[in-house]
Amino acid sequence: MPTINRDRLLEDLRTLRTFGATGTGVVRPTFSTVDMEARQWLCNRMADAGLEATIDGAANVFGRSPNPGPTIVVGSHSDTQPTGGWLDGALGVVYGIEVARTLLEDPATAHLAVDAVAWSDEEGTYSSCIGSKAFCGVLTDDDLSATNAEGESVRSALQRVQLTNVPHVRLDPNRHVGYLEAHIEQGPHLEAKGLEIGVVTSIVGIGGMSITFTGEQNHAGTTPMPARRDAGVALFDFAVRARERIAAIAGDATVWTFGQATLHPGADSIIPGRADLHLQFRDPSTDVLDAIDSTVRVLVEEMTTTGPVDVAVTNTRERIAPTVMDDGLRSHLAAAADNHTSRSWQDMPSAAGHDPMVIAHHLPCGMLFIPSIGGISHDFAEDSSEDDITLGCQVLADATASALLASP
Amino acid sequence: MPTINRDRLLEDLRTLRTFGATGTGVVRPTFSTVDMEARQWLCNRMADAGLEATIDGAANVFGRSPNPGPTIVVGSHSDTQPTGGWLDGALGVVYGIEVARTLLEDPATAHLAVDAVAWSDEEGTYSSCIGSKAFCGVLTDDDLSATNAEGESVRSALQRVQLTNVPHVRLDPNRHVGYLEAHIEQGPHLEAKGLEIGVVTSIVGIGGMSITFTGEQNHAGTTPMPARRDAGVALFDFAVRARERIAAIAGDATVWTFGQATLHPGADSIIPGRADLHLQFRDPSTDVLDAIDSTVRVLVEEMTTTGPVDVAVTNTRERIAPTVMDDGLRSHLAAAADNHTSRSWQDMPSAAGHDPMVIAHHLPCGMLFIPSIGGISHDFAEDSSEDDITLGCQVLADATASALLASP
Repeated sequence: MPTINRDRLLEDLRTLRTFGATGTGVVRPTFSTVDMEARQWLCNRMADAGLEATIDGAANVFGRSPNPGPTIVVGSHSDTQPTGGWLDGALGVVYGIEVARTLLEDPATAHLAVDAVAWSDEEGTYSSCIGSKAFCGVLTDDDLSATNAEGESVRSALQRVQLTNVPHVRLDPNRHVGYLEAHIEQGPHLEAKGLEIGVVTSIVGIGGMSITFTGEQNHAGTTPMPARRDAGVALFDFAVRARERIAAIAGDATVWTFGQATLHPGADSIIPGRADLHLQFRDPSTDVLDAIDSTVRVLVEEMTTTGPVDVAVTNTRERIAPTVMDDGLRSHLAAAADNHTSRSWQDMPSAAGHDPMVIAHHLPCGMLFIPSIGGISHDFAEDSSEDDITLGCQVLADATASALLASP
Repeated sequence: MPTINRDRLLEDLRTLRTFGATGTGVVRPTFSTVDMEARQWLCNRMADAGLEATIDGAANVFGRSPNPGPTIVVGSHSDTQPTGGWLDGALGVVYGIEVARTLLEDPATAHLAVDAVAWSDEEGTYSSCIGSKAFCGVLTDDDLSATNAEGESVRSALQRVQLTNVPHVRLDPNRHVGYLEAHIEQGPHLEAKGLEIGVVTSIVGIGGMSITFTGEQNHAGTTPMPARRDAGVALFDFAVRARERIAAIAGDATVWTFGQATLHPGADSIIPGRADLHLQFRDPSTDVLDAIDSTVRVLVEEMTTTGPVDVAVTNTRERIAPTVMDDGLRSHLAAAADNHTSRSWQDMPSAAGHDPMVIAHHLPCGMLFIPSIGGISHDFAEDSSEDDITLGCQVLADATASALLASP
């Protein structure tokens, strides 16, 4: 199998970091000046790698292999969080370029076709996964109307960066046979277990519920305790009881969070008449997501029936179903990981969302994780070791080559 | 003893209600146009009652008896809550006028001195108890700089209503021997027990604490449950445990309220790194207030020591000590209540604040309550029966006369 160029890989990663560098982190929000400058640089690097490189109408940087298919697309997104780390997205983008050029350089794999990509707006500065949606032909009018924090829509931003009349590069079912993406783990599991690679089994599904408590607003001095219908007290009780019940049915990978709690009117001298609590929960299994949903609804029903406060529940978002990775691509990633790490790797779910949540509906997907130092991500302190970065790219290159070689 | 004039009393109450009438309620905030119009009308009614009536430099309406002392001041405040009821304050103000004129009209009591008063800004549209503080000589620069919701200061408001150069009517230790105020109960106790009169023993003290939880903000998807330091979860736990412990040491009259709870940053996908909870507690006994304070601090210490989140506590306000009513005035109120109600009355604390919290430091105070229908107050639905209104005024008139007759 061809060997990747460690120095070239690390140098490209460091150069990409300079676009929006802020302390140890990177601030490169979608469609910002530095984001577009980074895309132009990535386009040049893809051309240098021997790819037919363009920036398309969704600001995706796409490097098409000169070889005919079957083709695997390899990449990630190059936009960052508002105060992001230097590897989230960037790692997978530079891996895509490195894998494409490494395979083209080696006579044994020079006939294989790897298209490199840097998607736009995965992080949701405007909407989310704008670039991969455009590639899959599922970009909606809502996506184009979505605005960033300054109120600029995607449509206006594309005009501003002069991409309005540029066509989208689209998935070609006659050419593309798969999509591979590497990413930092963004969690602590690999580091904690001393492992070097994670092969993603699925991206967790996400559910969100809003629980509303309706009691009676009243004077906090003159209303005796037994006469109260305190919506805040009901919220506190609910949160503690829901946590116990969810813990009892949760799997190893389940996470759940009360990210918002609000008491109305929110004054020291007034008994809250209404309160709102938001629950978000994630799991790789639809069964577990369903069980949490049911558990919450049963508790809502119990508290309404037995307590002084009315409790109601609504969904805060449409359920995102777990995204299962392709068995074939997983087995190529696993074989490559086995080969390079002496079994220092594991299968694992992805607890965060990624572009394959869009792409997997249209093309088989595989994902690979490398360890995050301290599990930190979406933060300037985000980092991974150079050895882990290098190893991850080599495993991805091997898996890409073997998957293409096995492709009919 | 002289008999009050029921029709005159009710007619004056209904007329006062027209200043700011809104549905069944009254909107008459301090220093508003309707507030000043009401004060002018009250000044005229005090003059009609045979008193030397003025609006002083703090907008207090003060009706000085033509008789020499000893003198008891009788009244309440005539400003309302932003969306207030028609009796909160107004009842005690009209009682003051009715008691003064009733005693002046009866040959047996015509020599007694009752000064009637309508205080300003008890409800805290700007500060609180502006009028009674001015009367007692304790109005501060902070009070004068306090602003209403529109940002107007007391100082500017007094200029606007042309009272800047008008002197304050001040407590005269050589003349004034006591202050009596009647008020609606603003709670459900009298109605629930079928009683007609409450003789106030003390006004509850108030404590306020802010409990701050400091954990670690993190990604709600990628951070495993055991690794979390969730400030929101700690807040919910604390609230439930604090409630159990406070209930165990509370007296019959103790009330406590979590009126504010905030999670930071307050997003569905982010584990709260910080959370704030406000506790307010009220009791007629300093011992109980101290015990609640200690209980909260012990729990804070326990949770910081044993849990993953740091917990800290600060006071949100200076402790307001309970205000004890004067024994002598209480006994005159009790004797009058006994005489008119066949023991259908009780001693009770006041769970809400009133001007005697200021005045009692300078002059013996007594307070009388009449029942609130449904316990409702600070609301357009606030009301009391005409029989209860009439009886309360008669009891207050008797108590005022007997206290003055007993005065050396």
